[in-house]
Amino acid sequence: MKFDELKIGMSAETTKTITETDVVLFAGLSTDINPLHINEEYAKTTVFGSRIAHGILVSGLISATLANKLPGPGCIYLGQDLKFTAPVRINDTVTARVEITELREDKKIVTLSTTCTNQRGEVVIKGSAVLKHNV
Amino acid sequence: MKFDELKIGMSAETTKTITETDVVLFAGLSTDINPLHINEEYAKTTVFGSRIAHGILVSGLISATLANKLPGPGCIYLGQDLKFTAPVRINDTVTARVEITELREDKKIVTLSTTCTNQRGEVVIKGSAVLKHNV
Amino acid sequence: MKFDELKIGMSAETTKTITETDVVLFAGLSTDINPLHINEEYAKTTVFGSRIAHGILVSGLISATLANKLPGPGCIYLGQDLKFTAPVRINDTVTARVEITELREDKKIVTLSTTCTNQRGEVVIKGSAVLKHNV
Amino acid sequence: MKFDELKIGMSAETTKTITETDVVLFAGLSTDINPLHINEEYAKTTVFGSRIAHGILVSGLISATLANKLPGPGCIYLGQDLKFTAPVRINDTVTARVEITELREDKKIVTLSTTCTNQRGEVVIKGSAVLKHNV
Repeated sequence: MKFDELKIGMSAETTKTITETDVVLFAGLSTDINPLHINEEYAKTTVFGSRIAHGILVSGLISATLANKLPGPGCIYLGQDLKFTAPVRINDTVTARVEITELREDKKIVTLSTTCTNQRGEVVIKGSAVLKHNV
Repeated sequence: MKFDELKIGMSAETTKTITETDVVLFAGLSTDINPLHINEEYAKTTVFGSRIAHGILVSGLISATLANKLPGPGCIYLGQDLKFTAPVRINDTVTARVEITELREDKKIVTLSTTCTNQRGEVVIKGSAVLKHNV
Repeated sequence: MKFDELKIGMSAETTKTITETDVVLFAGLSTDINPLHINEEYAKTTVFGSRIAHGILVSGLISATLANKLPGPGCIYLGQDLKFTAPVRINDTVTARVEITELREDKKIVTLSTTCTNQRGEVVIKGSAVLKHNV
Repeated sequence: MKFDELKIGMSAETTKTITETDVVLFAGLSTDINPLHINEEYAKTTVFGSRIAHGILVSGLISATLANKLPGPGCIYLGQDLKFTAPVRINDTVTARVEITELREDKKIVTLSTTCTNQRGEVVIKGSAVLKHNV
């Protein structure tokens, strides 16, 4: 979408089930081998009670929504702020929602609020993204 | 490491080559199919000149350093701030470095600066992480 | 197998359980991120009732049978016709069966019927393949 | 897109570089371990001269375009006809293009021509797809 077509309040979403495969592969890609993600017996002994997904893995759904949908391909990702507010368990279905909150015309900078919720509507990640529009 | 053993200025690092495999798999895990990551012919026409890695994928090295080394397993990741300051290309070798900048005794909160650099020493990601110490 | 050894009616099979991992990875390889494949909550609301595997992913078992067994390595795959007759769910075990139906001696062309069935014997894919024999 | 919004001649595309990772993983997902795909030394001795991608793997880009873009999510894939007209080598960038050629109003059936070309514009796959519109 062209910069001039963007409006404050526009939003887009991506929804995906976070599978065990995602967690196993992301452990390998990132080298984040926290036992909380890969050791079910250990995870049972923690406050979480079962393995949870990596927060950064789940954040990938925000990046996907920004890249695929709004503002879409051709933007440069400048920054992302993330608060991990609740755990995501294997087989949770997460929806990332991005909404434009600020448009800086002179530098073509787009700011969006970025929120991930699970299938029960609980917020699991909150934050904001900043992109430079390139088109 | 126990909370009492942590000191401001302590640091840890993780280094990994970001491979084409990492980028291909992360595109699937995240559903971020930005052509900049998966279409070499498109990427050649951009300012980047070749495919680049997903910023969030590279950020996984920060999460890995926090989880594996400092403060280490048993902490809860509360937040992460990220500035993507330069592109990471396929086959770049990235070092994530975390350093304790603040320790809040009453709530056992640890704040760290988090920096990723490439094999030429260029900073590719800057930011900070906040964790709750659990032990 | 040499072309002269091939006979009409010869057949071969490959059986594999279609796992969640297969579906997650194929979504990435193909960029086919249809929510029917990657979003369990969405899939529950459809006539299918749960996530299903990509039809093209399952078709890979046909290609495997042709390449590994009959006619085997050294043939060139010219064409494949596919009818997707029933959904394949995660953890279904699918058998691909290929059977030679036609042999064209002058051009060394082999035609085979190609059928995939699930563990209950239901046909999930029907079609035919054409290969050029190379040996 | 609703069935009534579809018109003959509408088209959509997906472009992706076919990486070695894609080929290696698809060999595992499909069990198609044809040496032409996984053995470079063998491939050198064939008319192809180097490893080539699985035809069915490349066909996944057609499925992705149908599922993600046109007609989009919520359709049921009934059939696909494929002619493999030229090899796809590792690192080729393939564009799948689908174009509506027929609309059957009574049964809400959509037929599309499906063509994959490489970065030099050579057609590597030709065929057609049939989907049932569900919305």
